[in-house]
Amino acid sequence: MNSNFPARNPDFEAVVRESFARQPMMSTLGAELVRVAPGAVDVAFAHAAAFTQQNGFLHAGALTSIADSACGYAAFTLAVPDTDVLAVEFKINLLAPARAPRYVAEARVLRPGRTLTVCRADVFGEEGGGRTLVATMLSTIITRKAGIA
Amino acid sequence: MNSNFPARNPDFEAVVRESFARQPMMSTLGAELVRVAPGAVDVAFAHAAAFTQQNGFLHAGALTSIADSACGYAAFTLAVPDTDVLAVEFKINLLAPARAPRYVAEARVLRPGRTLTVCRADVFGEEGGGRTLVATMLSTIITRKAGIA
Amino acid sequence: MNSNFPARNPDFEAVVRESFARQPMMSTLGAELVRVAPGAVDVAFAHAAAFTQQNGFLHAGALTSIADSACGYAAFTLAVPDTDVLAVEFKINLLAPARAPRYVAEARVLRPGRTLTVCRADVFGEEGGGRTLVATMLSTIITRKAGIA
Amino acid sequence: MNSNFPARNPDFEAVVRESFARQPMMSTLGAELVRVAPGAVDVAFAHAAAFTQQNGFLHAGALTSIADSACGYAAFTLAVPDTDVLAVEFKINLLAPARAPRYVAEARVLRPGRTLTVCRADVFGEEGGGRTLVATMLSTIITRKAGIA
Repeated sequence: MNSNFPARNPDFEAVVRESFARQPMMSTLGAELVRVAPGAVDVAFAHAAAFTQQNGFLHAGALTSIADSACGYAAFTLAVPDTDVLAVEFKINLLAPARAPRYVAEARVLRPGRTLTVCRADVFGEEGGGRTLVATMLSTIITRKAGIA
Repeated sequence: MNSNFPARNPDFEAVVRESFARQPMMSTLGAELVRVAPGAVDVAFAHAAAFTQQNGFLHAGALTSIADSACGYAAFTLAVPDTDVLAVEFKINLLAPARAPRYVAEARVLRPGRTLTVCRADVFGEEGGGRTLVATMLSTIITRKAGIA
Repeated sequence: MNSNFPARNPDFEAVVRESFARQPMMSTLGAELVRVAPGAVDVAFAHAAAFTQQNGFLHAGALTSIADSACGYAAFTLAVPDTDVLAVEFKINLLAPARAPRYVAEARVLRPGRTLTVCRADVFGEEGGGRTLVATMLSTIITRKAGIA
Repeated sequence: MNSNFPARNPDFEAVVRESFARQPMMSTLGAELVRVAPGAVDVAFAHAAAFTQQNGFLHAGALTSIADSACGYAAFTLAVPDTDVLAVEFKINLLAPARAPRYVAEARVLRPGRTLTVCRADVFGEEGGGRTLVATMLSTIITRKAGIA
């Protein structure tokens, strides 16, 4: 899945990395940015018992947190300066039990816009050199002037 | 929003409470079960800085985790004995910035089924005696025999 | 399900009815507006063989068309003058086979906004004095200045 | 977008084409099957005034009908004999105004299953040799024994 949209802020990568670093939820989950390109952001994180459900699998909410942040930052790579992004809504399908040691959420912009941007994210479980698609998200993000609560 | 579906497991409340107590994700978030009735489960939790995004609001993933668990357990109240529930998919709309001191996710079964159950959850921020609808989820849950991974 | 939002256009009902009358899709389906109130629109239509799927049930796309229009017009009842509405996205759960002689989609605004409005619609099959919930939709609608393509 | 899942019914193509031919909704819309392969179904149709909304664009419900049928039949290509498929739910994002002379919905299976299959469909508007992504759907389909209403 590729994105061919041009960045409209030359500092997009620094802006994305700075915002990600300020997200307590991402550090709580131990997530890290592993790719930042125009229209494309990948976020990785390791399995941790603290975020599992009753059967030992990763909780859907943890997968969702990562996929949601990846989508938001993918949209943010294409935003003009002095804006902020916020998720309007998303849907996620959970495709396989999440019990891999490591996960990567790969978010791509499907349709960029001044106001609304639509992103898709696939979340893969990685284990022993192989990867399995464990979830897929479709998300709508709104871009607003920075500083508006 | 009420649910008028009969429980098919006389021990439904004990089964739900026992499973919830075994969810590390719920204790990590500091969530608690505040209502367990046939077709209806409410989950409450307090705002915590560890689960916020870059602007200090609660991360959408935290709201989603709570709403998802509330939906799953609402479905579980109507399940037959010796089964387990798993989210197939859900959609959530984020309706207002989440910066209340306390939240309650109220999940209700819309359509129970042997295999698939559909639930809705409204998440309210509570502050100073008032409440605001901050998110709403629509979720599909599958019921399976217990012990199948 | 009630809506307590005030209309911002005193002519909202006339504007909604005039727009609905100009929707070829609604007349093709034989749909009619049966309620127009601030934040609430109901659309009814009769079963017709032309819109069924391979088993004789109403096609999900027909139910969706009606629910989508009901949501759009529910949002439109709360819009300021000289605007237009457009669906950004929606999700629908199909809850029961659709084989009733008549259907009503009841759309309600959950969260009105200058730019984005979120609506829910429940679609009921009506037969012999009874009604069954056959589908439920959660939808995001954008309001724009009229005349922008 | 490719699908690499094997068909489990050697007659999958005939079964899909026969079922599609029995869908009154598809003939009402003037839709045709343009690709049937394991895990992949494309459905094309021409713009028609009867299915437009108030601004002359194709109604979201018409796009949805085509994408929904494409997803259902994509799932059906991987089903075992003597089964039927039914949409459980779907979400669609409308990405651009739909005013092309011709559309193609390309559905692919993301995750096949005995009970539940998840599909994605992209809908393109085609005009003068070019194509624009106008909508994308994420859908959950259930497979059941044939003849169960």
